[in-house]
Amino acid sequence: MFNQLGVIGCGLMGGSFALALKRAGLVQRVVGYSKSPSTVERARRMGVIDIAAESALLAVSGSDIVLIAVPVAASEATFKAIRHMVEPGTLFMDVGSTKRDVVDVARRVLKERIGSFVPAHPIAGKEVAGVEHADVQLYQGKQVILTPLAQTDPVMVQKATDVWAAIGCQVLRMTPENHDTAFAAVSHLPHLLAFAYFNAMLAQPAGREFLSLAGPGFRDFTRIAAGDPNVWRDILLSNREEILKQSQRLRHALDAFEVVMRSGNTEALEDLIRTASDGRAGWQMNARPATAR
Amino acid sequence: MFNQLGVIGCGLMGGSFALALKRAGLVQRVVGYSKSPSTVERARRMGVIDIAAESALLAVSGSDIVLIAVPVAASEATFKAIRHMVEPGTLFMDVGSTKRDVVDVARRVLKERIGSFVPAHPIAGKEVAGVEHADVQLYQGKQVILTPLAQTDPVMVQKATDVWAAIGCQVLRMTPENHDTAFAAVSHLPHLLAFAYFNAMLAQPAGREFLSLAGPGFRDFTRIAAGDPNVWRDILLSNREEILKQSQRLRHALDAFEVVMRSGNTEALEDLIRTASDGRAGWQMNARPATAR
Repeated sequence: MFNQLGVIGCGLMGGSFALALKRAGLVQRVVGYSKSPSTVERARRMGVIDIAAESALLAVSGSDIVLIAVPVAASEATFKAIRHMVEPGTLFMDVGSTKRDVVDVARRVLKERIGSFVPAHPIAGKEVAGVEHADVQLYQGKQVILTPLAQTDPVMVQKATDVWAAIGCQVLRMTPENHDTAFAAVSHLPHLLAFAYFNAMLAQPAGREFLSLAGPGFRDFTRIAAGDPNVWRDILLSNREEILKQSQRLRHALDAFEVVMRSGNTEALEDLIRTASDGRAGWQMNARPATAR
Repeated sequence: MFNQLGVIGCGLMGGSFALALKRAGLVQRVVGYSKSPSTVERARRMGVIDIAAESALLAVSGSDIVLIAVPVAASEATFKAIRHMVEPGTLFMDVGSTKRDVVDVARRVLKERIGSFVPAHPIAGKEVAGVEHADVQLYQGKQVILTPLAQTDPVMVQKATDVWAAIGCQVLRMTPENHDTAFAAVSHLPHLLAFAYFNAMLAQPAGREFLSLAGPGFRDFTRIAAGDPNVWRDILLSNREEILKQSQRLRHALDAFEVVMRSGNTEALEDLIRTASDGRAGWQMNARPATAR
């Protein structure tokens, strides 16, 4: 399907994409670049990439598909480094968890060359970063959201759809704005809450003793609190307007519980819990409504 | 070890305890009582109990170990129903997730007979209730907290320790007060947050559409939101003072994040996330500090 994949950022996401494309026989050769020479060298030794490039631009050179898998805050520098080689016929994608900011940067830096860029967000990850955790199965059975713009070349959107589908993803399309609103709700706020909750625990005198008593519910609730600080710093900043709105909604929902707890309104409290409990019991991952297709 | 186990409340917790004691050969016979005749009949058909008792008192009669596994709010009625048969030589335990309220009720109802009662909280459970989910392995490898009082018979505390250890539990001792403070932090607040978060999601216009986009992080973060409404209503009410204090701590920690998100203080935000991330990455379930033994 492709001749050469260029990976800019040979970490968990970029490395797993390279492994999956190779395994599926979708690419002949993988050229990789990372800011850290030791990372790119490790990726080469591990067989995640075939050739180590000395710059982002050299990773693009000769590639007909390029994945930009750097922290969201590094998008601008990356686009600037490669813009002269962003040309029709090569598919460019990112993997950022926020899309409005990436699209803004792409518009500003790539200008009329933006047609080759298909913004992408695969809903996949791990609480560990780095190429040493790259996993050929990372994207298998996951969703990927594409947020193409009016100027995006439809041929590239189709190619992007095909390549993610070929490595086992369900592919959805949304606007960058709807994407960021939805993910503030389903992903960014839960991370913020898990971070804040863990910090509240650590900040109290007996916090560490309490932690020794925590069980399976705590384990699952706080799993995402182990997220990568660089990645999550960028996400919480770049999508902060939407996340702060979601946080406000959470505070209101929490107020409702506290009011009935304080007043001892047993029935109202049970109703509030039942709404959540029934909602969660009826939820299934990857159950897509017709409207989201 | 025991002749007859009396189980009052043949649900998930009581049923699993009966199965575990039978499997371990710790008991000859299990007599069970539940408020609902169909529950106790199902428990008997499933072989979880051997004999269905027609009252709580009849489940106590002839038993040398009794487990009270009813919702916390039903503790008082249960103690009242059995108090005339609470006698030295028989070990009485509960499984409630809160301990101060149970101890208060026991003091009030059992009076000088309280010596046989060892308050217990096994840190185990499922997001489904009922004897049909009873599991011989439920308590295996879990912690159980005993909160004996000054009046509790030391022989009974030792028996309680031995029986939980024999079915695979780590046994800890705490005061009822310390127990409730610690579990407000590590268990009750996470449940409250998961309930409130799920309700905040459902309350927004596009909430159900957002839910179709949620991934593995959301799945784990919200698992406990499916908790049983009757059980959690009782817990959130009976330990509300401590839970509201913990909720206040969470709000302060959340404020700290929001302040640096609004001001765009990249470094401070990264520091806050790193505290949580490092803390969670270094946490292990059932790693007991020496002080808690």
